[in-house]
Amino acid sequence: MIAALCAAIAQKKAPVVAGLDPALSMVPERMLKDAYAAHGETLKGAAEAILSFNKEIIDYVYDLVPCVKPQIAMYERFGFEGVRAYVETIRYAKEKGLFVIGDIKRGDIGSTASAYAEAHIGTVQVGSKTYAAFEEDFATVNAYLGSDGVKPFVDICNKEDKGIFVLVKTSNPSGGELQDKVLAGTQEMTVYEQMAALVSEWGKDSMDGDYSNVGAVTGATYPEEGKKLRALMPHTFFLVPGYGAQGATAKDLAPFFNKDGSGAIVNSSRGIIAAWQSKEYEGIKDAEHAAGEAARMAANTMITELRTVTGGN
Amino acid sequence: MIAALCAAIAQKKAPVVAGLDPALSMVPERMLKDAYAAHGETLKGAAEAILSFNKEIIDYVYDLVPCVKPQIAMYERFGFEGVRAYVETIRYAKEKGLFVIGDIKRGDIGSTASAYAEAHIGTVQVGSKTYAAFEEDFATVNAYLGSDGVKPFVDICNKEDKGIFVLVKTSNPSGGELQDKVLAGTQEMTVYEQMAALVSEWGKDSMDGDYSNVGAVTGATYPEEGKKLRALMPHTFFLVPGYGAQGATAKDLAPFFNKDGSGAIVNSSRGIIAAWQSKEYEGIKDAEHAAGEAARMAANTMITELRTVTGGN
Repeated sequence: MIAALCAAIAQKKAPVVAGLDPALSMVPERMLKDAYAAHGETLKGAAEAILSFNKEIIDYVYDLVPCVKPQIAMYERFGFEGVRAYVETIRYAKEKGLFVIGDIKRGDIGSTASAYAEAHIGTVQVGSKTYAAFEEDFATVNAYLGSDGVKPFVDICNKEDKGIFVLVKTSNPSGGELQDKVLAGTQEMTVYEQMAALVSEWGKDSMDGDYSNVGAVTGATYPEEGKKLRALMPHTFFLVPGYGAQGATAKDLAPFFNKDGSGAIVNSSRGIIAAWQSKEYEGIKDAEHAAGEAARMAANTMITELRTVTGGN
Repeated sequence: MIAALCAAIAQKKAPVVAGLDPALSMVPERMLKDAYAAHGETLKGAAEAILSFNKEIIDYVYDLVPCVKPQIAMYERFGFEGVRAYVETIRYAKEKGLFVIGDIKRGDIGSTASAYAEAHIGTVQVGSKTYAAFEEDFATVNAYLGSDGVKPFVDICNKEDKGIFVLVKTSNPSGGELQDKVLAGTQEMTVYEQMAALVSEWGKDSMDGDYSNVGAVTGATYPEEGKKLRALMPHTFFLVPGYGAQGATAKDLAPFFNKDGSGAIVNSSRGIIAAWQSKEYEGIKDAEHAAGEAARMAANTMITELRTVTGGN
């Protein structure tokens, strides 16, 4: 699956993933009104509003970016109706030819990890029938629980040609409270480098082209650490969050890519989907499809910036 | 919320939580047939089958145990229909007077962590209306991302009198790959002890009776580590998984309790809910309510064993 994503990135010359992390506060008034008129101010109404919003964003960016990353928390917030909107968002994105990374950050053990893996990137058996419940192409995984929590995902990656990204060095300010601790008896090896070593090991039998289907999440807000990790894990593809709203700029991103400009995909969520509410796009904020149009412009700006980093690849 | 749970444990003399981790393979044939007859062999059919199963288990144990812990992965496996069954299971358990720990192991940052916290133990605003989407009393949290991921949960714990259990030392065999690493510059402090220190710190302003509403998950399969943690975090309540099917026995559990027999609640999932399929309860496996009856007997056995550990409290 990672080889196919790399091909799509090369074809669109855009190592960019649009993060679909919608909040009701980002949804244009017109869509809220329609959803509440149909379903009331209910969890279902909220879910329908964010689904309409997502569809507009997808309609305006699907030809520019290769991939979207819905953050399931933003859907789970509205209960099972929200989770339904998550499923329908994935389906719509795939119909438009987009790859989908489910940002689910699940992590558990044994049969529980298997249940998550089956649900999100595999299939589940019901009597004589088989279903793919969520149908993401990739999922993000939290590996605090070690191999037991990751192996069921890797097994499905290998069987069904899917991919995962394991949290290594996260983009948030407090990520270092645990991740940056140095381990005893090592040459200054940190917890996140230990995690990186585990990720490389988990991924070594899942090569798919130049990279493994077992990737890593490495926050754009930590370019120094990104540089170390790039050297440490040459065959690991990076999902890089933290660009834009979280503060990282284009020049922070160079260390995450290999010399040929491959090896990473950079996420922007609010920077794209909430662009229509920013000062920069004030001029179009009353347009009928302001959310979509501003998202398209913001995605284009980001792609142009990233091409200066990757040399146009 | 933890004070109320402690009171319920004392009243029932049962520091036991029944883990509702259903799989279709545990559901009696009669319930599967009914669910498939009504909804076909679909995700909805599967969800209805596990909901019926849960209701039978709850009906047979609600007067014995103070608490249930549905593991959301087992529901998410069936997509949004499964998540609906998760919500309905919680509602049913609460109607029966049970406390509910949502075993969700969520962990993310900033607005995303807030979305999870609002969904599971808080409320979400939709226009002028406010909803509790899942309504758990407690949730489990993965804190690999540090304070940013935990604070939104703690804020809601404080505001709404709810609780969380943060993963510290998990019960699975590979948990130690990261958790047992020793940190440099410390007196043999491990990653999990560092996490324990963070958990104590996060919980210090959330005291509710003798314990904090910010608890810890500490696996029964590691009694030595449990002893260390009990000493290290005297005001932290422990959720202890790993009893029964995962191999821990009653004598392994003593270190997790304080001297007065309080301070922990022990989970058993398969040992209770799948008891009807075990050799031990073979005699009743054809009874109409075999699943419920065997669950009740298994819960009673576990409670009796635990009373030898806690001195009857």
